[in-house]
Amino acid sequence: MKVLILGIDGYIGWSLALRLISRGHDVYGLDNFITRRRVKEVGSDSLLPLLSFSKRVERVKDTYGKGIEFTRGDASDPKVIYDVIKRYKPDAIVHLAEQRSAPYSMIDLKHALSTMHGNIQSTMSLLYAVKDIKPDAHIVKLGTMGEYGTPNIDIPEGFFEVEYHGRRDYLPFPKFAGSWYHWTKVHDSNNLMFANKLWKTKITDVMQGVVYGTRTREITETGAYTRFDIDEVWGTALNRFCAQAIAKMPVTPYGKGGQTRGFLSLEDSIQCLTIGIENPPENGEYRVFNQFYEHYSVLDLANKVSKIYRKLYGGDVTIEHVPNPRVEMEEHYYNPEHKKLFELGYRTVRTLEDELSIILSDINRHRRRLDRLRHVIMPKTSWRKSSGLDMLKARR
Amino acid sequence: MKVLILGIDGYIGWSLALRLISRGHDVYGLDNFITRRRVKEVGSDSLLPLLSFSKRVERVKDTYGKGIEFTRGDASDPKVIYDVIKRYKPDAIVHLAEQRSAPYSMIDLKHALSTMHGNIQSTMSLLYAVKDIKPDAHIVKLGTMGEYGTPNIDIPEGFFEVEYHGRRDYLPFPKFAGSWYHWTKVHDSNNLMFANKLWKTKITDVMQGVVYGTRTREITETGAYTRFDIDEVWGTALNRFCAQAIAKMPVTPYGKGGQTRGFLSLEDSIQCLTIGIENPPENGEYRVFNQFYEHYSVLDLANKVSKIYRKLYGGDVTIEHVPNPRVEMEEHYYNPEHKKLFELGYRTVRTLEDELSIILSDINRHRRRLDRLRHVIMPKTSWRKSSGLDMLKARR
Repeated sequence: MKVLILGIDGYIGWSLALRLISRGHDVYGLDNFITRRRVKEVGSDSLLPLLSFSKRVERVKDTYGKGIEFTRGDASDPKVIYDVIKRYKPDAIVHLAEQRSAPYSMIDLKHALSTMHGNIQSTMSLLYAVKDIKPDAHIVKLGTMGEYGTPNIDIPEGFFEVEYHGRRDYLPFPKFAGSWYHWTKVHDSNNLMFANKLWKTKITDVMQGVVYGTRTREITETGAYTRFDIDEVWGTALNRFCAQAIAKMPVTPYGKGGQTRGFLSLEDSIQCLTIGIENPPENGEYRVFNQFYEHYSVLDLANKVSKIYRKLYGGDVTIEHVPNPRVEMEEHYYNPEHKKLFELGYRTVRTLEDELSIILSDINRHRRRLDRLRHVIMPKTSWRKSSGLDMLKARR
Repeated sequence: MKVLILGIDGYIGWSLALRLISRGHDVYGLDNFITRRRVKEVGSDSLLPLLSFSKRVERVKDTYGKGIEFTRGDASDPKVIYDVIKRYKPDAIVHLAEQRSAPYSMIDLKHALSTMHGNIQSTMSLLYAVKDIKPDAHIVKLGTMGEYGTPNIDIPEGFFEVEYHGRRDYLPFPKFAGSWYHWTKVHDSNNLMFANKLWKTKITDVMQGVVYGTRTREITETGAYTRFDIDEVWGTALNRFCAQAIAKMPVTPYGKGGQTRGFLSLEDSIQCLTIGIENPPENGEYRVFNQFYEHYSVLDLANKVSKIYRKLYGGDVTIEHVPNPRVEMEEHYYNPEHKKLFELGYRTVRTLEDELSIILSDINRHRRRLDRLRHVIMPKTSWRKSSGLDMLKARR
């Protein structure tokens, strides 16, 4: 199958490229390396060292005897998207090229608007390009479980049957996201649904949980590393906790730590995306996957990191609750459904505890890099204080 | 009360300004006159002749002994929004300054993106400016009943109680809009809800039905006219039907004509917005009004135009169904709720049939202008054919 990955240089993008190549697919890529630059913008860097993209491709050629055709460009530029689809005529396009950090989108009005416009424009341009040039291509779009928020009822996979005043309909599940970034994914999902209605575009909208892990079947040595971020803007809570443990800092859940989310390992994420690509929807179908394996609260994560750290290194980890910079419920019901990927054959490969041992060892192996990055772990971005005043001062 | 109207030069904006002035409020306005220019872009013009904005303000001074403070500028420019809120310190801000045409947003990818970005950015900038400068100001934001689409169940006012798998929650009603323009209003509503959660901003989100009419209590002579569009891009179905009847052209419902929507007169729209402004929500409240009086199908409208035309002018009107350029259900259930404005005192002033006599007479009085505009009534913009190819060709 010819698969085009938008955002191929990213955490998921690079891991997916290796899997697809190893399964015999023809892989094409687009990236403008903006995540590499933006992470440096906040004084951080991938904790695991990364090869340059051209070295990555050389290594792929050496390992699999087959390269990756690559275009450098911005996925939110319609011209770029039209060009790559015209050039590669892909059967499937995996869209991983959106700004992916919630805190980044909450820094101020400027970051909120750039996230909003960039993300929406990349998905709109992709929808039009597929419609105009390759209308039978399958779009696999990365959304997030965060689109649903934390309602006090079960969360279905995208749609559910509603009864109201004695009548019934099958409707999209109401969304309530928790940051401007997460809302761009809701706006995208809405735009995807509408494009599907207009043009019968084949779409898989992936509501993905939080991904953890440094390894997959293909990432077995340091030369194959995908990126791994531990700072407050680009890293997840679990990544930060692991880095804090190794750096002998306290592990710092935000607030009470009862915030519960769906999780899956990088290996599982890549397995699920591959299943989605290799089992496309029906013609004219818009389908939604809730892509996660288990759910944990932030405090569960802190306790697990503490437990595995003790097992591996013998010492104790302090857990220190810090004021929550976000606006979110810290105790709530959480029960999302996730059947469709299991029906297509998804089976989890690693448990969180197995994976944590590997993550901690990988971080431990790069303690010198960690020493340089320990100042970027604690939160600076406050949801409530997000403002437009500095942006306007800067313009005068 | 100090009321700032964003988009004060528009159809609703100008009518609302006259009402608020006549009720003793201090009115401030922002507009960049883009609708005047964009209507000309598609070869059309307001069928009723308009004074320039400065003449409008002079006339207001003559009539009410009180002027309107006005800033010329673009509501999607954060600097402009921050400046007017800093300057006028309004108690209420009515946001009517978004691109308001569904067909305009469907012309091609370029128009889709400009509608998406402009509308979203104006609302985001307003939310940040209110938060930063005047956090107790009340935002009255114009949305549309079209955000809900046409579900097979009743439509509540924004939120409803959902039961799913034996548990209950009170959630936003799922939206499903019918054009990129309508989706921008959904995206706005989502962003408004989130800003309210972050910063407790006081918001009235108005899901308005289709507005018809040329007159209000203050618009009693031609010098006070607000704009009235009859072309396929900027006019509503009812406006086009009235223009077709007077021009002795067939009245042309799209498809079967069973498409049903909520409607209200211009006089009622202004009454409702005034009620919303004069009865602000509680501190920290986000409330949704379904603002319409009755619902009609497109075919009902055609038949009513035909009936009133016969009564006034004696002749027959031909009804000719034309292929539907939109993607929409042409026969469906439709039962939206609308209680909140009635509870606050809304009472309808004119029925559709009364109003139709006035609209037809106003058009008939300007038959020479109508002769020049008759070529812009029929649809040219196709939802299914919307494309990005021309936009990209133009860039090379």
